[in-house]
Amino acid sequence: MGKNLATKILEAHLAQGELVPGTEIAIKVDHTLLQDATGTMAMLEFIAMGVPRVKVELAAQYIDHNLLQTDNRNADDHIFLMTAAQKFGINVSKPGNGVSHQVHLERFGVPGRVMLGADSHTPTAAGLAMLAIGAGGLDVALAMAGHPFHLPCPKIMGVKLTGALPPWVSGKDVILEMLRRHSVKGGVGKIIEYYGPGVETLSVTDRATIGNMGAELGATTSVFPADRRTREFLESQGRGDRWQPLAADADASYDEYDEIDLSSLEPLIACPSSPDNVVRVKDIEGVKVDQVIVGSSVNSSFRDLMTVCRILDGRRVAPQLSFNINPGSRQVLENVATQGGVMMLLLAGAQIHQPGCLGCIGMGQAPGTNQVSLRTFPRNFPGRSGTKNDKVYLCSPETAAAAGIFGVITDPRRLGELMPWPNVQNPEHYVLDDSSIIPPLADTRDVEIITGPNIVPFPEFEELPEELQAGVIIKVGDNISTDTIMPAGNRVLPFRSNIPAISQFVFEQLDADFPARAKARGDGVVVAGENYGQGSSREHAALAPRYLGIRAKLAKSFARIHKANLINFGILPLVFKDPADYDLLNQGETVTFSRLRSLVAAGATEIPVRVDGREIVTLLQVSARERQDLLAGGTLNYVKKGS
Amino acid sequence: MGKNLATKILEAHLAQGELVPGTEIAIKVDHTLLQDATGTMAMLEFIAMGVPRVKVELAAQYIDHNLLQTDNRNADDHIFLMTAAQKFGINVSKPGNGVSHQVHLERFGVPGRVMLGADSHTPTAAGLAMLAIGAGGLDVALAMAGHPFHLPCPKIMGVKLTGALPPWVSGKDVILEMLRRHSVKGGVGKIIEYYGPGVETLSVTDRATIGNMGAELGATTSVFPADRRTREFLESQGRGDRWQPLAADADASYDEYDEIDLSSLEPLIACPSSPDNVVRVKDIEGVKVDQVIVGSSVNSSFRDLMTVCRILDGRRVAPQLSFNINPGSRQVLENVATQGGVMMLLLAGAQIHQPGCLGCIGMGQAPGTNQVSLRTFPRNFPGRSGTKNDKVYLCSPETAAAAGIFGVITDPRRLGELMPWPNVQNPEHYVLDDSSIIPPLADTRDVEIITGPNIVPFPEFEELPEELQAGVIIKVGDNISTDTIMPAGNRVLPFRSNIPAISQFVFEQLDADFPARAKARGDGVVVAGENYGQGSSREHAALAPRYLGIRAKLAKSFARIHKANLINFGILPLVFKDPADYDLLNQGETVTFSRLRSLVAAGATEIPVRVDGREIVTLLQVSARERQDLLAGGTLNYVKKGS
Repeated sequence: MGKNLATKILEAHLAQGELVPGTEIAIKVDHTLLQDATGTMAMLEFIAMGVPRVKVELAAQYIDHNLLQTDNRNADDHIFLMTAAQKFGINVSKPGNGVSHQVHLERFGVPGRVMLGADSHTPTAAGLAMLAIGAGGLDVALAMAGHPFHLPCPKIMGVKLTGALPPWVSGKDVILEMLRRHSVKGGVGKIIEYYGPGVETLSVTDRATIGNMGAELGATTSVFPADRRTREFLESQGRGDRWQPLAADADASYDEYDEIDLSSLEPLIACPSSPDNVVRVKDIEGVKVDQVIVGSSVNSSFRDLMTVCRILDGRRVAPQLSFNINPGSRQVLENVATQGGVMMLLLAGAQIHQPGCLGCIGMGQAPGTNQVSLRTFPRNFPGRSGTKNDKVYLCSPETAAAAGIFGVITDPRRLGELMPWPNVQNPEHYVLDDSSIIPPLADTRDVEIITGPNIVPFPEFEELPEELQAGVIIKVGDNISTDTIMPAGNRVLPFRSNIPAISQFVFEQLDADFPARAKARGDGVVVAGENYGQGSSREHAALAPRYLGIRAKLAKSFARIHKANLINFGILPLVFKDPADYDLLNQGETVTFSRLRSLVAAGATEIPVRVDGREIVTLLQVSARERQDLLAGGTLNYVKKGS
Repeated sequence: MGKNLATKILEAHLAQGELVPGTEIAIKVDHTLLQDATGTMAMLEFIAMGVPRVKVELAAQYIDHNLLQTDNRNADDHIFLMTAAQKFGINVSKPGNGVSHQVHLERFGVPGRVMLGADSHTPTAAGLAMLAIGAGGLDVALAMAGHPFHLPCPKIMGVKLTGALPPWVSGKDVILEMLRRHSVKGGVGKIIEYYGPGVETLSVTDRATIGNMGAELGATTSVFPADRRTREFLESQGRGDRWQPLAADADASYDEYDEIDLSSLEPLIACPSSPDNVVRVKDIEGVKVDQVIVGSSVNSSFRDLMTVCRILDGRRVAPQLSFNINPGSRQVLENVATQGGVMMLLLAGAQIHQPGCLGCIGMGQAPGTNQVSLRTFPRNFPGRSGTKNDKVYLCSPETAAAAGIFGVITDPRRLGELMPWPNVQNPEHYVLDDSSIIPPLADTRDVEIITGPNIVPFPEFEELPEELQAGVIIKVGDNISTDTIMPAGNRVLPFRSNIPAISQFVFEQLDADFPARAKARGDGVVVAGENYGQGSSREHAALAPRYLGIRAKLAKSFARIHKANLINFGILPLVFKDPADYDLLNQGETVTFSRLRSLVAAGATEIPVRVDGREIVTLLQVSARERQDLLAGGTLNYVKKGS
């Protein structure tokens, strides 16, 4: 029986364990990716490890999230990251050079490599046949220090693509179809591997779009083969020498199967406020649109933006509508400009922003009250835009451009009445420009790391206690994202290196009193439903609650990255053995754990919890390594002990 | 004896009074300008007046200040302003279309007209031979309602220009020379009129630069003749029919005189943290630069940006430096793009932002701690950038570009060793694009004004009392700007329609405890030195202290716009008769006014103040009209009474 591609890459990188789904494995990491929202903390953690230079083939530090600079803090952090990266042999992509994922695809990605990134959309590199996984900052810092990455061995889900996309339908519609079918939990514990004759009809950037939003399925990552389209892309980037053919064996098998006939897809759209709330665009035509944004980590490639340019060329966006462009990278903007696209956008009335994440993490571009915003972004979790009760839809660039012209949600196939289908292809040879990338120095002895006043010391956390009485500080429902736990945006992100300050925003949109209540109670727990902690990889969603005294989270299930982050910072991720026990717990009650430390140390998978005279059973589904981290009060404590 | 141009325009618009310097006059207003930071309050005031449609030749509402949208508030205010403007017959310039002053020059300005703008840099239109004056929002709202504008009749200062600027020297160096000579107080109570053979060597946009920063001299406004260069500019904008020749008579006289030989000027730079702290660039060469920003309301024209493009063409900015471009308008960006400039900037590593004010009012782009920022902006008051203890220098685009390349402050004439002087001229025919201007509707009956939750009711203010005991809440020094009184920036500006909220930021950088202390004390006064309230026209610098209980400000002297704003909101602007009395007053003391209302009503110019057993004399130098406003507790109270 042949092997699938994901298994081949995992095998080639396996450092510990066996490829048995659910068991813990460790894999060697080739590339690491940090951005600036998660990167300052990760860099501080790396510094704490005392390693003089990164021990991976390639490390990159991107500055793409916090570009607004409304006071000294973001600029201070940029300088900290740039000087620290220089000190440790890390490539720097300067502010304004673009979104990490797009730039990595363009300038650094190599087929077959494993990448660990402190950003949940790291799987964008699937488009280049990398096995690219999002993780917490501490995990990435450990990888930079040469440690393999531990994860539960995923199942491999094979998705066979057949046919070819019709006009006005693009990569975004493929992944929206996957979300429609499988929901935001459908990918948990899985790598999604695309194969079949439809693959070669998709450009690397369309594949990247599909890989990027595999994160929204909850998948560990996604992967595409490296084929002639991959070679074309690398050659267009002047990096043809990095190509190698990679594919599943012809008789490969998968743990699960799905199939999409690309030719059958229609324009799709995710309605507020979940990426899996997907309907056909034609079913909700006519909804008035106030804002459109094209770009961010997904749909910000040349093909995506130039498609919008061609659609808007010679036309104007609807008068009351704000039409925004977030190019994925300086390279994208340059290539669009070279082909006349910048003028097409400007003359149509679009606002062109500097390349970066911007509105996608609530860093500007927040819509007004009751306004409808159509975005080509990957996420529309409630409030992520920066506006409470926001109405954010996710769609393709084609659908976004159609709304721009008509001022209402419109099936982009209607554009066919106004113009021929533009069918934009990526350039055969991109204008290349590495002016905003600072490569690693050979000799870093003279580099001084500049630490601004915004970076405060990392808090000390206690070891796991033997006996624990804790209050239920909050009880939440299903699919709570890390955006809900730890908001992003311009008010919050500048505090990312200041845990005491950022902790004041935990659960702000849901229950602004949470931080005060948690601090007052001393030790606390959070009770949650299914898929708790989906979305962004930000480790602050574990770190800040831990700072507020949260010692355990009791949930029906956890999202992978968040679970790992909880362990990294010494919070017990406990799953109800009987999901019905969720109903027994209420805010304000006290839960009691006995012989907790002994049970965790002894490898117990069942942790009893007493509440209101009754006992319920929770499951601690973690590896032996993770038990050590939990006992130590977190991975950094464990690593610092030198154990 | 012939007349100067300023007098001719004033005479043609005189509605009340005589042109005797120092006496109050009223002039008819042709154009009004609102931007979004001052405009929401001004629009609310206009709405309170109950006038169905503006009564001026042309009214424009620009949205250029608060573009970041980090939550619903800015977007809500944009919609409020756009719908209200439509309701009342006002042109709207949408977000991203550019800075009010640059756009007004391009699309609306007419030689010889009087413009009143709720922005202190309204005098930019001097470049187009307009008499354009900055004022508080309420003054502009009154003008929109058809009232003439009251002001103390200014003196006219004639500045004779001879010669022509040498290579690498431009308009910014002319106004920096004026600031070097005359300081930030040198223009108080004056209109500065430029004449002489040097004038025609300056383009309209260089003249606009000089007019813009006349505000930094404290001048009421500046004015240039309308000559063949003016016609050229209007023709290049497709508006040649709006031209008429305007100039002083050959034998005109002025109240004061100065003269600048343009050929003798060298590149100049204003050091931190005042626009008049001017030295020659060559005298401070070598200072390491961390950030450069080209653009904002000044030096954001085609000539300015294209000059930077040509200098950077084929070069790269210094690696650790952040080089930013704020185009003055969509039109500027389009014309730069058409001539290849966008690619020159991008390939050099510059970050291009959407057209707007941005960093100039602390709306993004704040430098890091201890970083040196070179900006072509008009102002560098302490903390205005958003960063405490900032180090902001003001310079020409040529000097900014040189620093970008060399990474240190560098006399731009050194660029002559690398390249010929680019000598960029404005286009003979601009690419024109009004896609982001919404013209007034003829029939506005169906327009609904959308008022978001961020707009809270205007506070009620009491009438002036007969007896007043008040505490000295703070004592400050000379040249305190409105940026220090009422900060701008992204944290503060979103509250501009919410006086209770914005008042919590009054004097934040100087004394964060001021709001609490003022509120606790009940009635209070502020004691200040010379030129109190210079800088931005923002009326919140009067309105918010008034909300906190400030009833009088005792100063050695006041800046014009701020003094008018104080009166508009019922705060007594009192000047020490003996400036030495400033030294007698200290924070925490109590001052007592007796028979205050009777004195003001009776036209008393001397208002006695008892403090600590002694009596000092202050001067109330206001018109009869202003006395009525003060008695009523502010102009809006007076207007609402229907008196």
